[in-house]
Amino acid sequence: MPGVGQAEGVSDERVVALWRDGGAVVVPADEPVLSAFDLGLVRGDGVFETVAVTGGGTPHLDAHLARLERSARLMELADPGRGAWQALVDALLARWSTPVEGAMRLLLTRGLGVGLPTTALGVLSPVPAETVRQRTEGIAVVTLGLGVPADFRSTAPWLLGGAKTLSYAVNMAALRHAAVHGADDVIFTSLEGQILEGPTSTVVWSADGVLHTPPPETGILPGTTMARLFARAAEAGRPTAVTPGTVDDLQAADAVWLVSGVRAAATVHTLDGVPRGDAGLSAGVRGLLAR
Amino acid sequence: MPGVGQAEGVSDERVVALWRDGGAVVVPADEPVLSAFDLGLVRGDGVFETVAVTGGGTPHLDAHLARLERSARLMELADPGRGAWQALVDALLARWSTPVEGAMRLLLTRGLGVGLPTTALGVLSPVPAETVRQRTEGIAVVTLGLGVPADFRSTAPWLLGGAKTLSYAVNMAALRHAAVHGADDVIFTSLEGQILEGPTSTVVWSADGVLHTPPPETGILPGTTMARLFARAAEAGRPTAVTPGTVDDLQAADAVWLVSGVRAAATVHTLDGVPRGDAGLSAGVRGLLAR
Repeated sequence: MPGVGQAEGVSDERVVALWRDGGAVVVPADEPVLSAFDLGLVRGDGVFETVAVTGGGTPHLDAHLARLERSARLMELADPGRGAWQALVDALLARWSTPVEGAMRLLLTRGLGVGLPTTALGVLSPVPAETVRQRTEGIAVVTLGLGVPADFRSTAPWLLGGAKTLSYAVNMAALRHAAVHGADDVIFTSLEGQILEGPTSTVVWSADGVLHTPPPETGILPGTTMARLFARAAEAGRPTAVTPGTVDDLQAADAVWLVSGVRAAATVHTLDGVPRGDAGLSAGVRGLLAR
Repeated sequence: MPGVGQAEGVSDERVVALWRDGGAVVVPADEPVLSAFDLGLVRGDGVFETVAVTGGGTPHLDAHLARLERSARLMELADPGRGAWQALVDALLARWSTPVEGAMRLLLTRGLGVGLPTTALGVLSPVPAETVRQRTEGIAVVTLGLGVPADFRSTAPWLLGGAKTLSYAVNMAALRHAAVHGADDVIFTSLEGQILEGPTSTVVWSADGVLHTPPPETGILPGTTMARLFARAAEAGRPTAVTPGTVDDLQAADAVWLVSGVRAAATVHTLDGVPRGDAGLSAGVRGLLAR
């Protein structure tokens, strides 16, 4: 299993880099960097990506930068471009001296106002021990309704389906709600009970030898780690499918995972209070992701 | 009409105050104040209020502080308490020397992590000329669906209905969508077409001599300015009602307003492209708010 145990090394190292005057500038991690008027703060008006740092590098950066650009387009945010993001990433990695796994966040906000420059920055900190525990031991998940029909967001661009925005208050509230009910994570469902996504992950399940994930037309984020898993599964001759599924489908599946960049494939061992197995499939899925 | 024209005085004065070590500290407005790791930025994980500043004071502060406390409870955020907010407000007003109208934002974020102190701050800046124009000249509004049934959010606390959070990306996207369609503002509707609220305002309409507003059980914010308007209308012997309404009801109404603290009652002169009047009622409504 990649990286397990690494993040348990003690480190409170944190790095912050700002895009300023056409260059990446590393600043002390404890130093305030954002104006109180920045719309990223006062309106959650921005987009972000969380990128896994392993072995001192960001092996899957390109997919995240592509999605960041897509989110920025959906939000009509001026993107400083690949060169700027690469410079921020390089600046963060150059100061990252610990051997532990890291989680790098790249953020782009609307800045001080429409027509003014956007704010671009990156931060890097160790992967929390709890994340590593969930990757190793699996997770208990509850399903929670978003209240929106599965086909609604594709017709309502103002709902920002498919954009990874800084407005994650509902995602965080859902995780608090799960914790109160003894669960680690959440799968959101549509009004009619279709599976959508986790607050910070993509749902993948295995049934009859096929890996399934819900359709992006539901307004969910296109998962970069799910896409990598499916590409490698296809290379390995393993069938994959984009499938509208229900909670019943998940309960009947051979295995269910919440897939994301830093936690990778977390095995769902309990769904809505019902214990479930993984039919021994998790090792193979993690193996595909580790290639 | 209160304050019209005042904000057209030129001012770029801005004031920022932070709650730090048990006291309110004014800092230079151009100085960064927020950590790149603050969850208010990276997760939109916080709450806020926007408070009108007129005549150098905040005449309606109490209702905003009560709602801020309510939002914080719904978000399980530790609130520094009335004394802290009052100290921040006093510090901002003490540095506010221009005679123009101001918009004061009070913000509370989850800070650097669960279990660590929350971040409380306030900012004060002049009311934008465009806001004053809309108050004076009225607004064109389009209705946009949120996709959620009107009764859904009251059963789904993780959707944070009734909490004024920093996660306003969808609200801002809706306003951009309106602008593309030649409109100034938006009224969100439920899946079945019930009127909900504006992205930054409460919907009020007049029909048969009664002022109406939608029920808070739909998950909309309880409007502080709407509440004041309704209280004063009741004092003046004018009937008010909490009414589930549709877009057809608005089209048939004698007048429609979007009501909020800084813009007060903005008359809707065009709804979904259809011009409409106010039956001469706007002056009376503004008179009630100006008392």
